[in-house]
Amino acid sequence: MTETFGVRLQERLRELGPLCVGIDPSSEVLTRWGRPDSVEGLEFCSLAVLEAVTGVAAVIKPQVAFFERFGSAGYRVLERLIQEAHDADLLVVADAKRGDVDSTNEGYAQAWLRDGAPLAVDAVTVSPYLGVAALRPLFDDAAASGRGVFVVAATSNPEGRSLQEARTFEQERVQEMVLRSVAELNQRDVGLGSIGVVLGATRDAPAFDLASLRGPYLVPGLGAQGAGVNDVARLFERCEQGTVLINVARAILFAGPEQRGLLDAARRWRDDLLAAL
Amino acid sequence: MTETFGVRLQERLRELGPLCVGIDPSSEVLTRWGRPDSVEGLEFCSLAVLEAVTGVAAVIKPQVAFFERFGSAGYRVLERLIQEAHDADLLVVADAKRGDVDSTNEGYAQAWLRDGAPLAVDAVTVSPYLGVAALRPLFDDAAASGRGVFVVAATSNPEGRSLQEARTFEQERVQEMVLRSVAELNQRDVGLGSIGVVLGATRDAPAFDLASLRGPYLVPGLGAQGAGVNDVARLFERCEQGTVLINVARAILFAGPEQRGLLDAARRWRDDLLAAL
Repeated sequence: MTETFGVRLQERLRELGPLCVGIDPSSEVLTRWGRPDSVEGLEFCSLAVLEAVTGVAAVIKPQVAFFERFGSAGYRVLERLIQEAHDADLLVVADAKRGDVDSTNEGYAQAWLRDGAPLAVDAVTVSPYLGVAALRPLFDDAAASGRGVFVVAATSNPEGRSLQEARTFEQERVQEMVLRSVAELNQRDVGLGSIGVVLGATRDAPAFDLASLRGPYLVPGLGAQGAGVNDVARLFERCEQGTVLINVARAILFAGPEQRGLLDAARRWRDDLLAAL
Repeated sequence: MTETFGVRLQERLRELGPLCVGIDPSSEVLTRWGRPDSVEGLEFCSLAVLEAVTGVAAVIKPQVAFFERFGSAGYRVLERLIQEAHDADLLVVADAKRGDVDSTNEGYAQAWLRDGAPLAVDAVTVSPYLGVAALRPLFDDAAASGRGVFVVAATSNPEGRSLQEARTFEQERVQEMVLRSVAELNQRDVGLGSIGVVLGATRDAPAFDLASLRGPYLVPGLGAQGAGVNDVARLFERCEQGTVLINVARAILFAGPEQRGLLDAARRWRDDLLAAL
């Protein structure tokens, strides 16, 4: 039987700590690096970050938007990055925030979560605007192939708050509905479940016992977006070790393009997170 | 100055009627067509539908998920489809439902809405889970390049209802918040605005005067998903001509693979919609 994503992730996080390195090769980053804003620049940047953080972080999180900028050529770079990360024994979470009706989510599941697909990753982020239940094809494919899904619950940006804190007919806020639904889905698993949530570090604690999710958290919002390591540590203090994945992107990328700078920045974040969590 | 998407769309819909042909080359469709579920099957199906509906419909809506299944090779097919559709004078709405924080949406804007981008289309669908305000880079790029954006408000699937009808702190439902926000954004435009919404035909009429959006509607849910032409006509009866774009996918695709079958189905839908709306 395939080992589940949840179990693999927890093992790796216990070895290397909670750091997830966000690979966001935006125009801004490539310009800072003195590289052209082109497919070549994209490839150089992505692979340089991968090389620097191998052995330091357990997980990389490429932001798909920045690859999609270059269409199929950008996706070829993403395919290479995924392949090289797997060869280097890193887990890959594609930050894609995909989500649609169930028959279309079947297509997204085939894209990101099936053995042999060119973009197959360890886990993909998805958006619940069309309902958590509509995401079922993604959950099913993840379970079948030992992969995972992170459902966006509460994001780190202020513009998302109004919708994510809206109250359903049952008087539950949207973000808590997502957390509760994911906790229910994870009941079928032994050990850490493979359906996680994205929970921004800049938010107040939701009205939900975070230790009861039975799945992993992916946490954006550190550094450039305003939250500190201690905010994160406080938010997740009751969670088991190896269940929280903390994304750092700009604060590491801006230390490039030299390997030395990238490596030092990644090690510093790893150590700070290990000390706090 | 570039003519806006809203104005171009309305002109084309007044000429050819409200039919938008959804290009959804799923495993299911390719199997029905007796074609392999491969990049070759994908390309054959997409281009066959395009050829059949040229001159019959004003707009095609490729569902990006089904191209993404094949990674960069699938995106090459999508690039070719977009190019050939433009050569044939059809408008292309990429159904991608992208959406993230604003700095990431900058990447999605570069992918779908910039001159010269391999995937540049006339309009792209986006999801507001991280806030309508976070979508600003997409609205700005659309305005600058004469392109458009459709923000998902209410979808045709039942699983989306709980979230889309949740009430914000101001007691407004999420779907009406999206409609109102888009109406406000379209105030800056002369003529039909270039920011539309996706509004499922299977839903009850929202608590919003649909004629006041100042932008176009993209309407899924006809045929396979349960709504009839008369439901749509009733929902939008107060809207100006050429502001409603009605998507039909399976009911046309299932009439393939022969050109004759596809063409007859597309014409039948065009005529039914023209008669009712």
